[in-house]
Amino acid sequence: MNADALLDRLIEALRCLPGVGPKSARRIAFHLLERDRAGGIHLAEVLAESMVRIKRCSRCRTLTEREVCALCTNPERDDGLLCIVEQPSDILAIEQATDYRGRYFVLGGRLSPLDGVGPEELGLDLLARRLHDEPIAELILAISPTVEGSATAHFIGERAAAQGIRVTRLAQGVPLGTELEYLDGGTLALAFSTRCTL
Amino acid sequence: MNADALLDRLIEALRCLPGVGPKSARRIAFHLLERDRAGGIHLAEVLAESMVRIKRCSRCRTLTEREVCALCTNPERDDGLLCIVEQPSDILAIEQATDYRGRYFVLGGRLSPLDGVGPEELGLDLLARRLHDEPIAELILAISPTVEGSATAHFIGERAAAQGIRVTRLAQGVPLGTELEYLDGGTLALAFSTRCTL
Ligand SMILES: [Zn+2]
Ligand SMILES: [Zn+2]
Repeated sequence: MNADALLDRLIEALRCLPGVGPKSARRIAFHLLERDRAGGIHLAEVLAESMVRIKRCSRCRTLTEREVCALCTNPERDDGLLCIVEQPSDILAIEQATDYRGRYFVLGGRLSPLDGVGPEELGLDLLARRLHDEPIAELILAISPTVEGSATAHFIGERAAAQGIRVTRLAQGVPLGTELEYLDGGTLALAFSTRCTL
Repeated sequence: MNADALLDRLIEALRCLPGVGPKSARRIAFHLLERDRAGGIHLAEVLAESMVRIKRCSRCRTLTEREVCALCTNPERDDGLLCIVEQPSDILAIEQATDYRGRYFVLGGRLSPLDGVGPEELGLDLLARRLHDEPIAELILAISPTVEGSATAHFIGERAAAQGIRVTRLAQGVPLGTELEYLDGGTLALAFSTRCTL
């Protein structure tokens, strides 16, 4: 169809972006070429630098260009609180939605032996060292309540509790603004059985 | 919130992509960093090269890395047919949907004096030269039937017709698969008044 090799390569390369199919890749390519070359050049530079320089923080495993990330080195955060999340993006979500001021630890996934994801892949040896070395009073398990997530939370929580650390997890129940008739049965049953006094 | 400068810069830079707000920029950044570094590096390279090397074809004004594009140099295309489109992406749409085998000319916009878009900005001097120098039998105006688009088509069509060139435009009417009750009144009125025998 279009025999212009470089334009074709650009459209193809844009498909590494999540959710971008052939049509949106084409739309993005034309947008950048016709309306925002400066933005495209800037993106290319920052993208190249990011892909090479951003690694995992050696303390919390979140994504960072530094050896230790800004959250880990921030002296104003509470060393007594450690919040376990699955993904770096969960940190941003918690930072934006809550007033949590403790530290974080990023698993980078969930225990899934069949997929080859064991304690080592999730950095649980590093976590164990932190639980041993640091004055952590409470471990908050902010892990998705899926089957694998719950198993992962249970695995981590048991080990921490054995060391005398207080272990908590996010409350489960009906999300705010959700109509009961659209809620899945499992969540409804759980929320019903864990109902509290008004 | 997130004090990691390079990650912030990546998320910000991704917002030059059309339709990408802060949330999707963040999602794209994490996707590339965690799951597709190779794709991200490749995109950065092709993007940088494209933004610098892709220009307008000197004959048809479409986007290309060459002085003259592949469609213009293809010896199998019919020199007697010239299709006028607004944007390079319109060429791809016509190539995919039709069996048109003529040449193209890209305006890059519509006449809009108030926005400073006159005949010069649309390359109409180049088009006039082509209409004069080349054996063009039919000029097809594949321009959106908007107010400015129609004015632009009229402007171009009159000049070509004055040179004895046959000028056609895309048929206007009810789009295939459209329910009449959802069609705008203007299109319905037009389709009604230009109805044809079955
Ligand atoms: Zn860190
Ligand atoms: Zn061309």
